[in-house]
Amino acid sequence: MTQRDILFRLAMHADLPSIVRMLADDDLGSQRERYENPLPESYYSAFEKINNDSNHELIVAELDGEVIGTLHLVFLPSISFQGRLRAQIESVRVDKRFQSQGIGSEMMKWTMKRAKQRGAHVVQLTTHKSRVDAHRFYERLGFKGTHLGMKSRLK
Amino acid sequence: MTQRDILFRLAMHADLPSIVRMLADDDLGSQRERYENPLPESYYSAFEKINNDSNHELIVAELDGEVIGTLHLVFLPSISFQGRLRAQIESVRVDKRFQSQGIGSEMMKWTMKRAKQRGAHVVQLTTHKSRVDAHRFYERLGFKGTHLGMKSRLK
Repeated sequence: MTQRDILFRLAMHADLPSIVRMLADDDLGSQRERYENPLPESYYSAFEKINNDSNHELIVAELDGEVIGTLHLVFLPSISFQGRLRAQIESVRVDKRFQSQGIGSEMMKWTMKRAKQRGAHVVQLTTHKSRVDAHRFYERLGFKGTHLGMKSRLK
Repeated sequence: MTQRDILFRLAMHADLPSIVRMLADDDLGSQRERYENPLPESYYSAFEKINNDSNHELIVAELDGEVIGTLHLVFLPSISFQGRLRAQIESVRVDKRFQSQGIGSEMMKWTMKRAKQRGAHVVQLTTHKSRVDAHRFYERLGFKGTHLGMKSRLK
Protein backbone atom coordinates (compact mmCIF):
# COMPACT_ATOMS: atom_id res chain seq x y z
CA MET A 1 0.00 0.00 0.00
CA THR A 2 1.03 3.58 -0.38
CA GLN A 3 1.70 5.22 2.95
CA ARG A 4 -1.40 6.84 4.32
CA ASP A 5 -1.71 8.80 7.50
CA ILE A 6 -3.15 6.38 9.97
CA LEU A 7 -3.57 7.67 13.49
CA PHE A 8 -3.38 5.21 16.37
CA ARG A 9 -4.96 6.35 19.61
CA LEU A 10 -6.92 5.25 22.66
CA ALA A 11 -10.56 4.53 21.93
CA MET A 12 -13.20 6.95 23.15
CA HIS A 13 -16.76 6.25 24.21
CA ALA A 14 -18.00 7.43 20.81
CA ASP A 15 -15.85 4.85 18.99
CA LEU A 16 -17.64 1.91 20.55
CA PRO A 17 -20.18 1.32 17.75
CA SER A 18 -17.35 1.18 15.19
CA ILE A 19 -15.41 -1.23 17.38
CA VAL A 20 -18.36 -3.55 17.92
CA ARG A 21 -19.20 -3.41 14.20
CA MET A 22 -15.70 -4.71 13.40
CA LEU A 23 -15.80 -7.37 16.14
CA ALA A 24 -19.14 -8.62 14.78
CA ASP A 25 -18.14 -8.54 11.09
CA ASP A 26 -16.28 -11.83 11.18
CA ASP A 27 -17.14 -15.56 11.03
CA LEU A 28 -16.52 -16.18 14.71
CA GLY A 29 -17.51 -12.73 15.95
CA SER A 30 -20.89 -12.74 14.22
CA GLN A 31 -21.97 -15.59 16.50
CA ARG A 32 -21.21 -13.76 19.70
CA GLU A 33 -21.64 -10.02 19.28
CA ARG A 34 -24.76 -7.84 19.05
CA TYR A 35 -24.15 -4.89 16.77
CA GLU A 36 -27.36 -2.99 17.33
CA ASN A 37 -28.48 0.61 17.61
CA PRO A 38 -28.30 1.46 20.44
CA LEU A 39 -25.60 -0.97 21.49
CA PRO A 40 -26.40 -3.23 24.43
CA GLU A 41 -25.46 -1.49 27.67
CA SER A 42 -22.99 -4.29 28.53
CA TYR A 43 -20.57 -2.95 25.91
CA TYR A 44 -20.56 0.47 27.55
CA SER A 45 -19.99 -0.84 31.04
CA ALA A 46 -17.07 -2.95 29.79
CA PHE A 47 -15.68 0.14 28.08
CA GLU A 48 -15.81 2.07 31.35
CA LYS A 49 -13.88 -0.65 33.17
CA ILE A 50 -11.24 -0.75 30.46
CA ASN A 51 -11.00 3.00 30.24
CA ASN A 52 -10.51 3.38 34.01
CA ASP A 53 -7.74 0.79 34.26
CA SER A 54 -4.25 1.93 33.30
CA ASN A 55 -3.29 -1.66 32.51
CA HIS A 56 -5.76 -1.62 29.63
CA GLU A 57 -5.50 0.26 26.37
CA LEU A 58 -8.27 -0.14 23.86
CA ILE A 59 -6.66 1.11 20.65
CA VAL A 60 -8.21 2.27 17.41
CA ALA A 61 -6.72 3.05 14.01
CA GLU A 62 -8.21 6.11 12.39
CA LEU A 63 -8.00 7.02 8.73
CA ASP A 64 -9.50 10.28 7.46
CA GLY A 65 -11.56 10.59 10.65
CA GLU A 66 -12.96 7.08 10.37
CA VAL A 67 -12.20 4.19 12.74
CA ILE A 68 -10.95 1.31 10.60
CA GLY A 69 -9.06 -0.91 13.04
CA THR A 70 -8.99 -1.91 16.67
CA LEU A 71 -7.20 -4.02 19.22
CA HIS A 72 -7.14 -4.37 22.97
CA LEU A 73 -3.73 -4.14 24.64
CA VAL A 74 -3.47 -5.41 28.23
CA PHE A 75 -0.49 -5.14 30.56
CA LEU A 76 -0.14 -8.06 32.94
CA PRO A 77 2.02 -7.81 36.03
CA SER A 78 3.32 -11.28 36.66
CA ILE A 79 5.54 -13.11 39.17
CA SER A 80 7.04 -15.38 36.54
CA PHE A 81 10.04 -14.26 34.47
CA GLN A 82 11.43 -12.57 37.57
CA GLY A 83 8.40 -10.36 37.97
CA ARG A 84 8.60 -8.78 34.55
CA LEU A 85 5.61 -7.17 32.87
CA ARG A 86 3.86 -8.94 30.00
CA ALA A 87 1.66 -7.48 27.31
CA GLN A 88 -1.29 -9.29 25.82
CA ILE A 89 -3.23 -8.41 22.70
CA GLU A 90 -6.88 -9.34 22.25
CA SER A 91 -9.67 -8.61 19.79
CA VAL A 92 -7.65 -7.52 16.77
CA ARG A 93 -9.74 -6.37 13.83
CA VAL A 94 -9.31 -4.35 10.65
CA ASP A 95 -12.40 -3.16 8.81
CA LYS A 96 -13.02 -5.59 5.91
CA ARG A 97 -12.96 -2.76 3.37
CA PHE A 98 -9.39 -1.95 4.42
CA GLN A 99 -7.90 -5.42 4.83
CA SER A 100 -4.78 -6.66 2.98
CA GLN A 101 -3.38 -3.15 2.82
CA GLY A 102 -0.85 -3.46 5.61
CA ILE A 103 -2.98 -1.64 8.18
CA GLY A 104 -3.14 -4.56 10.62
CA SER A 105 0.59 -4.92 10.42
CA GLU A 106 1.15 -1.21 11.06
CA MET A 107 -1.29 -1.32 13.98
CA MET A 108 0.50 -4.34 15.50
CA LYS A 109 3.93 -2.77 15.08
CA TRP A 110 2.74 0.43 16.72
CA THR A 111 1.28 -1.61 19.59
CA MET A 112 4.40 -3.71 20.11
CA LYS A 113 6.49 -0.54 20.28
CA ARG A 114 4.02 0.88 22.79
CA ALA A 115 4.19 -2.31 24.87
CA LYS A 116 7.97 -2.14 24.91
CA GLN A 117 7.89 1.53 25.92
CA ARG A 118 5.76 0.61 28.91
CA GLY A 119 8.29 -2.02 29.94
CA ALA A 120 6.77 -5.29 28.74
CA HIS A 121 9.33 -7.97 27.89
CA VAL A 122 7.00 -10.15 25.87
CA VAL A 123 3.76 -9.77 24.00
CA GLN A 124 1.35 -12.68 23.83
CA LEU A 125 -1.88 -13.43 22.06
CA THR A 126 -4.01 -16.37 21.09
CA THR A 127 -5.71 -16.90 17.79
CA HIS A 128 -8.27 -19.53 16.87
CA LYS A 129 -6.73 -22.57 15.18
CA SER A 130 -9.04 -21.99 12.21
CA ARG A 131 -7.56 -18.53 11.51
CA VAL A 132 -4.66 -19.81 9.42
CA ASP A 133 -4.09 -16.49 7.67
CA ALA A 134 -3.80 -14.82 11.07
CA HIS A 135 -1.11 -17.32 12.13
CA ARG A 136 0.99 -16.36 9.12
CA PHE A 137 0.32 -12.68 9.71
CA TYR A 138 1.59 -12.90 13.31
CA GLU A 139 4.58 -15.04 12.29
CA ARG A 140 5.65 -12.33 9.86
CA LEU A 141 5.56 -9.92 12.81
CA GLY A 142 7.93 -12.15 14.79
CA PHE A 143 5.46 -14.19 16.83
CA LYS A 144 6.10 -17.88 17.42
CA GLY A 145 3.24 -20.33 17.97
CA THR A 146 4.84 -22.11 20.90
CA HIS A 147 1.71 -22.58 23.01
CA LEU A 148 -1.65 -24.27 22.98
CA GLY A 149 -4.47 -21.89 23.88
CA MET A 150 -7.18 -23.58 25.92
CA LYS A 151 -10.55 -22.26 27.03
CA SER A 152 -13.42 -23.47 29.10
CA ARG A 153 -16.87 -21.91 29.34
CA LEU A 154 -17.96 -21.38 32.92
CA LYS A 155 -21.47 -22.75 33.30
CA MET B 1 -5.68 -39.42 47.01
CA THR B 2 -7.43 -39.42 50.34
CA GLN B 3 -9.09 -36.09 51.04
CA ARG B 4 -6.76 -33.78 52.89
CA ASP B 5 -7.53 -30.32 54.09
CA ILE B 6 -6.08 -28.04 51.51
CA LEU B 7 -6.66 -24.36 52.03
CA PHE B 8 -6.84 -22.08 49.01
CA ARG B 9 -6.23 -18.40 49.69
CA LEU B 10 -4.69 -15.23 48.33
CA ALA B 11 -0.91 -15.17 48.49
CA MET B 12 0.79 -12.94 51.05
CA HIS B 13 4.14 -11.22 50.83
CA ALA B 14 5.71 -13.99 52.96
CA ASP B 15 4.61 -16.67 50.46
CA LEU B 16 6.72 -15.27 47.65
CA PRO B 17 9.82 -17.45 48.19
CA SER B 18 7.65 -20.60 48.10
CA ILE B 19 5.94 -19.38 44.92
CA VAL B 20 9.20 -18.57 43.15
CA ARG B 21 10.67 -21.90 44.25
CA MET B 22 7.81 -23.73 42.52
CA LEU B 23 8.02 -21.55 39.41
CA ALA B 24 11.74 -22.26 39.15
CA ASP B 25 11.48 -26.00 39.85
CA ASP B 26 10.48 -26.92 36.32
CA ASP B 27 12.20 -27.53 32.96
CA LEU B 28 11.05 -24.26 31.45
CA GLY B 29 10.95 -22.24 34.65
CA SER B 30 14.50 -23.08 35.68
CA GLN B 31 15.77 -21.15 32.66
CA ARG B 32 13.99 -17.96 33.54
CA GLU B 33 13.60 -17.61 37.30
CA ARG B 34 16.10 -16.71 40.04
CA TYR B 35 15.26 -18.52 43.23
CA GLU B 36 17.77 -16.91 45.57
CA ASN B 37 17.91 -15.76 49.16
CA PRO B 38 17.00 -12.95 49.31
CA LEU B 39 14.78 -12.99 46.23
CA PRO B 40 15.52 -10.39 43.57
CA GLU B 41 13.58 -7.23 44.34
CA SER B 42 11.72 -7.45 40.99
CA TYR B 43 9.61 -10.30 42.39
CA TYR B 44 8.48 -8.15 45.31
CA SER B 45 7.58 -5.17 43.16
CA ALA B 46 5.54 -7.42 40.86
CA PHE B 47 3.80 -8.86 43.92
CA GLU B 48 2.85 -5.36 45.08
CA LYS B 49 1.30 -4.55 41.69
CA ILE B 50 -0.67 -7.79 41.68
CA ASN B 51 -1.75 -7.39 45.29
CA ASN B 52 -3.02 -3.85 44.72
CA ASP B 53 -5.09 -4.71 41.66
CA SER B 54 -8.50 -6.24 42.29
CA ASN B 55 -8.42 -7.85 38.84
CA HIS B 56 -5.53 -10.01 39.98
CA GLU B 57 -5.59 -12.87 42.46
CA LEU B 58 -2.37 -14.69 43.17
CA ILE B 59 -3.57 -17.93 44.76
CA VAL B 60 -1.75 -20.45 46.88
CA ALA B 61 -2.69 -23.91 48.09
CA GLU B 62 -1.68 -24.58 51.66
CA LEU B 63 -1.38 -27.98 53.33
CA ASP B 64 -0.45 -28.28 57.00
CA GLY B 65 0.81 -24.69 56.98
CA GLU B 66 3.02 -25.22 53.94
CA VAL B 67 2.50 -23.63 50.52
CA ILE B 68 2.40 -26.48 47.99
CA GLY B 69 0.66 -24.97 44.97
CA THR B 70 0.11 -21.68 43.20
CA LEU B 71 -1.58 -20.04 40.26
CA HIS B 72 -2.28 -16.54 39.10
CA LEU B 73 -5.89 -15.69 38.30
CA VAL B 74 -6.54 -12.56 36.24
CA PHE B 75 -9.89 -10.98 35.41
CA LEU B 76 -9.99 -9.30 32.02
CA PRO B 77 -12.70 -6.83 31.18
CA SER B 78 -13.24 -7.10 27.45
CA ILE B 79 -15.39 -5.56 24.73
CA SER B 80 -15.78 -8.82 22.86
CA PHE B 81 -18.49 -11.33 23.80
CA GLN B 82 -20.81 -8.39 24.47
CA GLY B 83 -18.53 -6.91 27.06
CA ARG B 84 -18.43 -9.95 29.30
CA LEU B 85 -15.67 -10.56 31.79
CA ARG B 86 -13.02 -13.20 31.07
CA ALA B 87 -10.75 -14.99 33.47
CA GLN B 88 -7.23 -16.06 32.66
CA ILE B 89 -4.99 -18.42 34.55
CA GLU B 90 -1.19 -18.15 34.46
CA SER B 91 1.76 -19.72 36.24
CA VAL B 92 0.16 -22.89 37.56
CA ARG B 93 2.45 -25.02 39.70
CA VAL B 94 2.18 -27.80 42.27
CA ASP B 95 5.20 -28.63 44.40
CA LYS B 96 6.90 -31.66 42.83
CA ARG B 97 6.67 -33.62 46.08
CA PHE B 98 2.88 -33.32 45.94
CA GLN B 99 2.20 -33.89 42.26
CA SER B 100 -0.12 -36.60 40.87
CA GLN B 101 -2.25 -36.49 44.01
CA GLY B 102 -5.13 -34.47 42.61
CA ILE B 103 -4.02 -31.20 44.19
CA GLY B 104 -3.66 -29.33 40.88
CA SER B 105 -7.09 -30.47 39.86
CA GLU B 106 -8.61 -29.33 43.16
CA MET B 107 -6.84 -25.99 42.86
CA MET B 108 -8.12 -25.49 39.31
CA LYS B 109 -11.68 -26.41 40.25
CA TRP B 110 -11.60 -24.00 43.17
CA THR B 111 -10.28 -21.29 40.86
CA MET B 112 -12.87 -21.89 38.15
CA LYS B 113 -15.63 -21.66 40.74
CA ARG B 114 -14.12 -18.44 42.02
CA ALA B 115 -13.91 -17.04 38.47
CA LYS B 116 -17.55 -17.86 37.88
CA GLN B 117 -18.54 -16.23 41.19
CA ARG B 118 -16.87 -13.05 40.07
CA GLY B 119 -18.85 -13.10 36.83
CA ALA B 120 -16.40 -14.46 34.26
CA HIS B 121 -18.05 -16.34 31.41
CA VAL B 122 -14.94 -18.10 30.22
CA VAL B 123 -11.58 -19.06 31.62
CA GLN B 124 -8.57 -19.18 29.34
CA LEU B 125 -4.97 -20.22 29.63
CA THR B 126 -2.06 -21.16 27.43
CA THR B 127 0.33 -23.99 27.98
CA HIS B 128 3.56 -24.73 26.18
CA LYS B 129 3.12 -27.24 23.34
CA SER B 130 5.76 -29.43 25.00
CA ARG B 131 3.67 -29.86 28.17
CA VAL B 132 1.61 -32.77 26.85
CA ASP B 133 0.62 -33.99 30.31
CA ALA B 134 -0.70 -30.53 31.10
CA HIS B 135 -2.87 -30.56 27.97
CA ARG B 136 -4.53 -33.78 29.14
CA PHE B 137 -4.87 -32.41 32.66
CA TYR B 138 -6.72 -29.33 31.41
CA GLU B 139 -8.85 -31.37 29.02
CA ARG B 140 -10.05 -33.47 31.93
CA LEU B 141 -11.10 -30.22 33.61
CA GLY B 142 -13.21 -29.26 30.58
CA PHE B 143 -10.76 -27.09 28.65
CA LYS B 144 -10.61 -27.29 24.87
CA GLY B 145 -7.43 -26.53 22.96
CA THR B 146 -9.10 -24.41 20.30
CA HIS B 147 -6.41 -21.74 19.98
CA LEU B 148 -2.82 -21.27 19.02
CA GLY B 149 -0.86 -19.32 21.64
CA MET B 150 1.74 -17.04 20.10
CA LYS B 151 4.42 -14.96 21.77
CA SER B 152 7.03 -12.50 20.70
CA ARG B 153 9.91 -11.20 22.80
CA LEU B 154 10.14 -7.43 22.74
CA LYS B 155 13.74 -6.48 22.00
